[in-house]
Amino acid sequence: MLETEARAWARGEPGQGVPVVGMVGAGQLARMSLAAATALGVRLRLLAAAPDDAAAQVSADVTVGAPADRAAVTGFAAGCDVLTFDHELVDLGLLAELEAAGHTIRPGPAALALAVDKRHQRAVLGAAGLPVPAHADVTGQADVAAFAAAHGWPVVLKAATGGYDGRGVWVLHGPEAPLPPAGPGGRPLLVEEHVGIERELAVLVARRPGGQAVVWPLVETVQVDGICVELLVPARVEPAVASSATAIGLAVAETAGVTGVLAVELFLTGSGALVVNELATRPHNSGHWTIEGARTSQFANHLRAVLDLPLGEPALTAPAVATVNLLGGADGADPRGRARLAAALAVPGVAVHLYGKLARPGRKLGHVTATGPDPGGALALARRAAAALVGEDAG
Amino acid sequence: MLETEARAWARGEPGQGVPVVGMVGAGQLARMSLAAATALGVRLRLLAAAPDDAAAQVSADVTVGAPADRAAVTGFAAGCDVLTFDHELVDLGLLAELEAAGHTIRPGPAALALAVDKRHQRAVLGAAGLPVPAHADVTGQADVAAFAAAHGWPVVLKAATGGYDGRGVWVLHGPEAPLPPAGPGGRPLLVEEHVGIERELAVLVARRPGGQAVVWPLVETVQVDGICVELLVPARVEPAVASSATAIGLAVAETAGVTGVLAVELFLTGSGALVVNELATRPHNSGHWTIEGARTSQFANHLRAVLDLPLGEPALTAPAVATVNLLGGADGADPRGRARLAAALAVPGVAVHLYGKLARPGRKLGHVTATGPDPGGALALARRAAAALVGEDAG
Repeated sequence: MLETEARAWARGEPGQGVPVVGMVGAGQLARMSLAAATALGVRLRLLAAAPDDAAAQVSADVTVGAPADRAAVTGFAAGCDVLTFDHELVDLGLLAELEAAGHTIRPGPAALALAVDKRHQRAVLGAAGLPVPAHADVTGQADVAAFAAAHGWPVVLKAATGGYDGRGVWVLHGPEAPLPPAGPGGRPLLVEEHVGIERELAVLVARRPGGQAVVWPLVETVQVDGICVELLVPARVEPAVASSATAIGLAVAETAGVTGVLAVELFLTGSGALVVNELATRPHNSGHWTIEGARTSQFANHLRAVLDLPLGEPALTAPAVATVNLLGGADGADPRGRARLAAALAVPGVAVHLYGKLARPGRKLGHVTATGPDPGGALALARRAAAALVGEDAG
Repeated sequence: MLETEARAWARGEPGQGVPVVGMVGAGQLARMSLAAATALGVRLRLLAAAPDDAAAQVSADVTVGAPADRAAVTGFAAGCDVLTFDHELVDLGLLAELEAAGHTIRPGPAALALAVDKRHQRAVLGAAGLPVPAHADVTGQADVAAFAAAHGWPVVLKAATGGYDGRGVWVLHGPEAPLPPAGPGGRPLLVEEHVGIERELAVLVARRPGGQAVVWPLVETVQVDGICVELLVPARVEPAVASSATAIGLAVAETAGVTGVLAVELFLTGSGALVVNELATRPHNSGHWTIEGARTSQFANHLRAVLDLPLGEPALTAPAVATVNLLGGADGADPRGRARLAAALAVPGVAVHLYGKLARPGRKLGHVTATGPDPGGALALARRAAAALVGEDAG
């Protein structure tokens, strides 16, 4: 039945069947995708690592299986019109095999590779003339010394794969700094120039297979210890900077051949230059504000893009939007407690999103978005609600 | 585990458990409630009449059972902090028993009774000084004739219970008109004056147990054959009319002692008076526009109200919002077909909501909401998208 429905829809037979999207992973991105899928009448099937994953808790269509399990992924793909992703922890070789066997994988393995492997990403984007930091591959201490001789200390050492939320990134201040323990012999490394950061920005793009793309207004992000804690839209930068960032985002999407949502994290340097920091070829934390703050959310446009349907408008619904991530506090208190939830919802103009996760210090438990007439006001409201939910002084 | 979680949350223990709302019914109102519940981290359990009900298709927490089955409803209520409703087809006696046994029922049976029984509703609202049409109970043809002698023909005959979407309403133009077949001996009837309708309006209120209430901007509705087909916000009426309508909505909510969302359908008569037409003590078709068009949706505020949490702002996200309901066309074509969906999504500024129902002529399959700078423009966009999905000329 499901097979028939999916195939009928993919063949474009009018009035037959429903679109079936399979998402590998069932974290908060999948969880927030469910609302968009339900509204569109799209069947969103999830391949969850565990039955209590954030999205698996609330979805009617969950298959439990590891993303590295070939049989699980292959079987899952068979029941879907298109396969897409909640994270990048996937076997790119397997995806290439599935694509060769006729499955529709969006984004495709070539685009995913740019998000998975930073060395590959720097090489491809650099070759396309896109602004990336000066960088070099590292196989030992000598490579770092040689790079620093050319570019000066400090330098930034990065794991080419597997790093996120500040993990896999080390700032080395001089030649005496030892390589991190996970260095040579472990994951591949690269070294990059240490860019003086004036502001951190994110460009969010949605792109269809044929190239139609939309770009949301530029996002300003605030990171603490490598973890994004606050976002503000529109970013407080000159219009020329916003235009350049948008152009870079679209060029990266085109170069990568991305289908779906692409988030390009950028540094605005002290000299006013923009350089690419990170990519994510999926809905991203820098786009959660779009649920309330934009006419079309990143989750809706990701589904529309991977199904090759026309994309929705990225325009703002208010002059300013601010999002504050909810990170588990030191006391481990659950933001779902009545007093905390009531205090947060008493703040005017905020929307609360909780991911169904047990509280642990530093864990992303949810986010709060506020809309308002100006950036400062929206941010103040979002901070108040966030403090009520996870702040140390919240009841 | 669920019991413990629910009870801990209800007791207000900080940081313990999650709020559990049980909803009797799993139609499109429950389906659209899921997104709001997921965002808030509220566990929404559904009592579905059938496993393929609109909401049951997509929810992880479905119990199948008839709303008239005492054992099913009683067992379902035991696992919830609060019981609420997707429809009014419930046993009010059973709900009163559950309430007496300590369960939290919101809205309570007394408020539900006003939506279930039009005779009771007219009596209660009339006694409270609220504007209702002149009316009388009917037990036979003589009652109709006596009423018409006092108020003139035509008169409107209504089934006191069980009517919706134009069913259970008959306009009688003279004494020779026979009573409808379902009349005396079947459902109780009432007769009302035939009000000259200038415009149909709806006031949407959300109210907490303690009385805190918010009112969304006034809605204008367009009915064809008793079925609402289009909605426009804000309603095109004088500010004084909007103020009066809002005051009536709040007064009905207070009189009814409603907890949750209340929709009050009003007639604006040719002489500029407002009279109450219908009530719904739950999220309602006249509030679907709030998902995109208001800062807080009716579904989010219904959950917040029944959990006695602070209510969210009802302000508009755009100067004008229009919604067009998708009714199954004569050809029975499914709006989820690729060509129809693609054509609708190509219309700028619209959001498509499909309810997961098979297409049948006249069936409510979904709705389309458009936001825009003016009512006419928003309505034109919503109509274009709706025509693409279910129009006779759509591909």
